[in-house]
Amino acid sequence: MNNLVEKMLQGDRRSAAKLITLIENDAPEKRDVLKQIYPHTGRAHVVGITGSPGAGKSSLVDELTREIRGEDLKVGVIAVDPTSPFSGGALLGDRIRMQEHATDRGVFIRSMGTRGSLGGLAEATRDAIRVLDAFGCDVILVETVGVGQSELDIMHHADTTLVVLTPQAGDHIQTIKAGIMEIADIFVINKADLEGTRKMVTDIEAMLDLSPLVNGWRPPVVTTIAIDHRGIPELWATIKKHRAWRKGNKGETNRERVRRELAEIIQRQLAHLISRDLDRHYEHLVEKVAARQLDPYSAAMDIIRQSWKGGLTQ
Amino acid sequence: MNNLVEKMLQGDRRSAAKLITLIENDAPEKRDVLKQIYPHTGRAHVVGITGSPGAGKSSLVDELTREIRGEDLKVGVIAVDPTSPFSGGALLGDRIRMQEHATDRGVFIRSMGTRGSLGGLAEATRDAIRVLDAFGCDVILVETVGVGQSELDIMHHADTTLVVLTPQAGDHIQTIKAGIMEIADIFVINKADLEGTRKMVTDIEAMLDLSPLVNGWRPPVVTTIAIDHRGIPELWATIKKHRAWRKGNKGETNRERVRRELAEIIQRQLAHLISRDLDRHYEHLVEKVAARQLDPYSAAMDIIRQSWKGGLTQ
Repeated sequence: MNNLVEKMLQGDRRSAAKLITLIENDAPEKRDVLKQIYPHTGRAHVVGITGSPGAGKSSLVDELTREIRGEDLKVGVIAVDPTSPFSGGALLGDRIRMQEHATDRGVFIRSMGTRGSLGGLAEATRDAIRVLDAFGCDVILVETVGVGQSELDIMHHADTTLVVLTPQAGDHIQTIKAGIMEIADIFVINKADLEGTRKMVTDIEAMLDLSPLVNGWRPPVVTTIAIDHRGIPELWATIKKHRAWRKGNKGETNRERVRRELAEIIQRQLAHLISRDLDRHYEHLVEKVAARQLDPYSAAMDIIRQSWKGGLTQ
Repeated sequence: MNNLVEKMLQGDRRSAAKLITLIENDAPEKRDVLKQIYPHTGRAHVVGITGSPGAGKSSLVDELTREIRGEDLKVGVIAVDPTSPFSGGALLGDRIRMQEHATDRGVFIRSMGTRGSLGGLAEATRDAIRVLDAFGCDVILVETVGVGQSELDIMHHADTTLVVLTPQAGDHIQTIKAGIMEIADIFVINKADLEGTRKMVTDIEAMLDLSPLVNGWRPPVVTTIAIDHRGIPELWATIKKHRAWRKGNKGETNRERVRRELAEIIQRQLAHLISRDLDRHYEHLVEKVAARQLDPYSAAMDIIRQSWKGGLTQ
């Protein structure tokens, strides 16, 4: 077994950190490391936290960490910033506020940016979650800065997804991005001392009245004032409720997730094979398309017919 | 032939607009439409415009449009905003400033957002470029709002890429995102009346001194004050120079582009096939991975071995 994996499984923090860096850098030993880690995963509960910028997600993560530590559970925090080239330790500016937790051996904090995550940020995040899972974290909080496509991809890896909103201007229900409402397991209205909180809660509830329930879970709406720790115990209780509910439905969700991951790995792998074959075997088709004697769609179908064992019927 | 295609090729604006919408919505007839359009493409010169927010890209596009119209060339403008769910006509707020051009029959303006572009924004943009190319636009200006990954993907479809910077705080050479310097065919320092312009030019030139030339083209640095139309004639002249230079190197670039497009289409198509096969033929592997008896990487390799006719060696 890889030495770092062995040490990490014994609880060595530096080895855990090194393994994540190795994964981020798409190092040659990455696949072996993940193979070895895989049997040790599946224990942690992964909480994704997303929402509009300025909604106070970082404070929420801080206070949730404190709350969860109160039960003596080991907490992993992954702060993902798709707009930042920085990754590694606690490099994000606002992570400085996490310093209280930084000296706590029961908390592992990691920032991830685009730099180094050659295999895609969402994939690197998923694998970092796996490392922290095998490392023994009971709860892993994954915070993203925004609500773009990469954030949505990252939230795929969460067991419970919090969508954090504030009653401030701009956060009206109508303007919330398509896709974001659907992924919420729990809505959090933070900065709930601001005017408009009640209206926001009512609006979300009204929207939920109109939405079909997914597997019978109706997302609760929790109000918090994170900087005062208000509402945080209730939020944690709600997360645990969702975790318990999920256990009953876990089988199907797990298979879906595995299916998606397999599809991703296969696609990435095939991408290499396709580029290789285009150079080796299909240069004549490339020429024809470049000369506009053949359109790209017909050429592509031709190549698939020749390479894929299964049928093309869809 | 599709009726819309026929009318568009005869110069009907509304048909052109409808075709782009149809492409954005991934309509069933999309592939046929693109097949029919393809032989009529390859004439337009596509100018990509990217750079940091607030660099004045919209003004630059406005003034470039005016300049190019001065030569009586037909201009297409595509404003791509990966953060906006809006697409269609001239919906972007700052496109209102394009109203001067909106009544000009020689200018076609289109905004594209994430909504509707189910096939991916970069791909939808590429196909929209194709429609405008077949529609007879001599020059197509493609403007993006930021410099994230999707913007870089979009710039792949440009013949000439302008990277627009300003001497304002935050736009120091050191802080410019990796990946953005490499794609510049021309650097534009806009708002060149601001302090720091000269230093910025010197810094970029110094950086270029250290960079290897790609095919022998050294990106010129052009200074502009777009809102006063200053430097715009020089910029347009530089674009034409790059266009002329490209003609000599077009063959290889074209083939590279075709190769990339074929790879993209094949991957997208295979993604469907993989999902289908995972459900139909590989459910037992999915089960094993979900039960953590097998790791995802080994399972994925197994599936590829069984589906792909070519070898797995890389």
